[in-house]
Amino acid sequence: MRGAVMYAPGDVRVEDRPDPRIEQPTDAIIRLTATCVCGSDLWPYRGVEKLEGPTPMGHEYVGIVEEVGNEVTALKPGQFVVGSFWASDNTCANCRNGYQSGCIHRVLMGTIGTQSEYARIPLADGTLVATPEVPSAELIPSYLAASDVLGTGWFGVVAAEAGPGKTVAVVGDGAVGLLAILAAKQLGAERIIAFSRHADRQKLATEFGATDIVTERGDEGVARIKDLTDGLGAHSVVEAVGTQESMLQAMHSTRPGGNVGFVGVAHDVNLPGMDLFMSLVRLHGGPAPVRRFLPDLLDLIGNRTIDPGKVFDLDLPLEQAAEGYKAMDERRAIKTLLRP
Amino acid sequence: MRGAVMYAPGDVRVEDRPDPRIEQPTDAIIRLTATCVCGSDLWPYRGVEKLEGPTPMGHEYVGIVEEVGNEVTALKPGQFVVGSFWASDNTCANCRNGYQSGCIHRVLMGTIGTQSEYARIPLADGTLVATPEVPSAELIPSYLAASDVLGTGWFGVVAAEAGPGKTVAVVGDGAVGLLAILAAKQLGAERIIAFSRHADRQKLATEFGATDIVTERGDEGVARIKDLTDGLGAHSVVEAVGTQESMLQAMHSTRPGGNVGFVGVAHDVNLPGMDLFMSLVRLHGGPAPVRRFLPDLLDLIGNRTIDPGKVFDLDLPLEQAAEGYKAMDERRAIKTLLRP
Repeated sequence: MRGAVMYAPGDVRVEDRPDPRIEQPTDAIIRLTATCVCGSDLWPYRGVEKLEGPTPMGHEYVGIVEEVGNEVTALKPGQFVVGSFWASDNTCANCRNGYQSGCIHRVLMGTIGTQSEYARIPLADGTLVATPEVPSAELIPSYLAASDVLGTGWFGVVAAEAGPGKTVAVVGDGAVGLLAILAAKQLGAERIIAFSRHADRQKLATEFGATDIVTERGDEGVARIKDLTDGLGAHSVVEAVGTQESMLQAMHSTRPGGNVGFVGVAHDVNLPGMDLFMSLVRLHGGPAPVRRFLPDLLDLIGNRTIDPGKVFDLDLPLEQAAEGYKAMDERRAIKTLLRP
Repeated sequence: MRGAVMYAPGDVRVEDRPDPRIEQPTDAIIRLTATCVCGSDLWPYRGVEKLEGPTPMGHEYVGIVEEVGNEVTALKPGQFVVGSFWASDNTCANCRNGYQSGCIHRVLMGTIGTQSEYARIPLADGTLVATPEVPSAELIPSYLAASDVLGTGWFGVVAAEAGPGKTVAVVGDGAVGLLAILAAKQLGAERIIAFSRHADRQKLATEFGATDIVTERGDEGVARIKDLTDGLGAHSVVEAVGTQESMLQAMHSTRPGGNVGFVGVAHDVNLPGMDLFMSLVRLHGGPAPVRRFLPDLLDLIGNRTIDPGKVFDLDLPLEQAAEGYKAMDERRAIKTLLRP
């Protein structure tokens, strides 16, 4: 089969890779309908994360079940399925507690690489959620968004305990930040403040439900949030970048007793203890347990309540994956969808 | 009046200080019935925190109202009162939200110094809670504990979301950690694991409700907690030390989706972002909003449901404050009560 492999920073190639096969009786093989490039794929692309040799890429996926292992009981060939970037058994204590990204048998899909024609999905019964029928083409981008960026933004908002009567601020205007805005709106937040300085992203933020746009960053951004909230700070802040500046901006934008939901993969972040101590905020985040939210999200997409697929503003054949990465790196695209 | 002043690390003297007087119409003057030495007073005593010249010490207090300012309406001379180490108006948005330690008008009592015969209490109506009558002598230590260490331990447990069905671990066997055990017991925790390697403190931990004692620290301590919790970690962990090691021990002892309540004043703590990210825990803490809990805590003490005053194992006249500090520094005493 064909699949994307990163050889070095800036060097992504689509080449022949071995066809996946059932390795464990709990595996399924899916034929990818669509996959995409994640903001986190840009860390190695930009050389911030080290590569250990040529690496198959991708961890977001929707597709059709081709084959299942002997112990798979909930799925059958021909079904359209969505899964998260963690494969999880969905039965262990951590899964039952809603933390499938902390599943004691979890497998990181990024180690498998789903920017490809086919993929092996471990723990298929726990990992994959099937739609009632194979969806029509225009819904594919939204289902694909559910695989990571929508579920991650949604978790950020839940972790930040946003809801009715709350003012929510979102740090980061990438796909996750934008979809956190959509999630905050769905979950009933009263006021949604987007930090963004890019016109195209501001526009999408507003479409998704942002009521205010703040273009300042760092301490100036924090001061603007205070201005907008009687000097107190937001009730809930979603952090969707993962840098030291963005984490501190999120913490300092939150009122005492308020909540920071952080979902940006941390890079060189070291939180000063006294700063955290004096802020009196609640911090929760990490790799999103997307599986917790998938059934509800697939319903909301299927009945056309939400349209998270709008974050894909570049749609390419898998063979042009290199251009998909480049466009995101250069911020010409928010998110690239790839079609095998 | 007489009051304790720290001149340098290890050098605490009781000397004549000016009698406090009403400065603002919202002030009250109290005559101290008892005061005490806090674990946090040991940071400057040990030279870890820098002193800016001779510093009046103390921020814990119970006493009798002597005089009130013109705008004080809820208190009158002769009442026995308890307050927290933050003076707070108890009316601003942060106070109404239960974060009186984040009051927009807060005053840190440590800047006033309550290891003395009298003290000025700012924002008296918001800060002080009166008991129905002047309590009998044997209850004084417990009311004094409510002023900080009980309220702080209680907040740690609430921040860690401990309760029925939960396994709680407490890092730190000082007065705050021990009273976090008492609080966890009161709040219905099913299992309470104390980290402690001192026989006298293990004994008090058990009296307060600890069901298990772990003597290991750091990674070994974490491994013991995992052993005791089916490999998952505790649901709730209270951190009552404030060092890098204790914070990481607390984080790593908590299961995904579990809660760390941190109330040890942070010293040289820098939380590695990726470690926090991958732990999937919820962190909440900071300077405890003791005022939130005072009415309930005073009831529990008054009706003899709890006896937090047991943490005072040294009871000295104020004039012997220097010995009170020394005994705590050398770990001969858990906590020193001082009587003016």
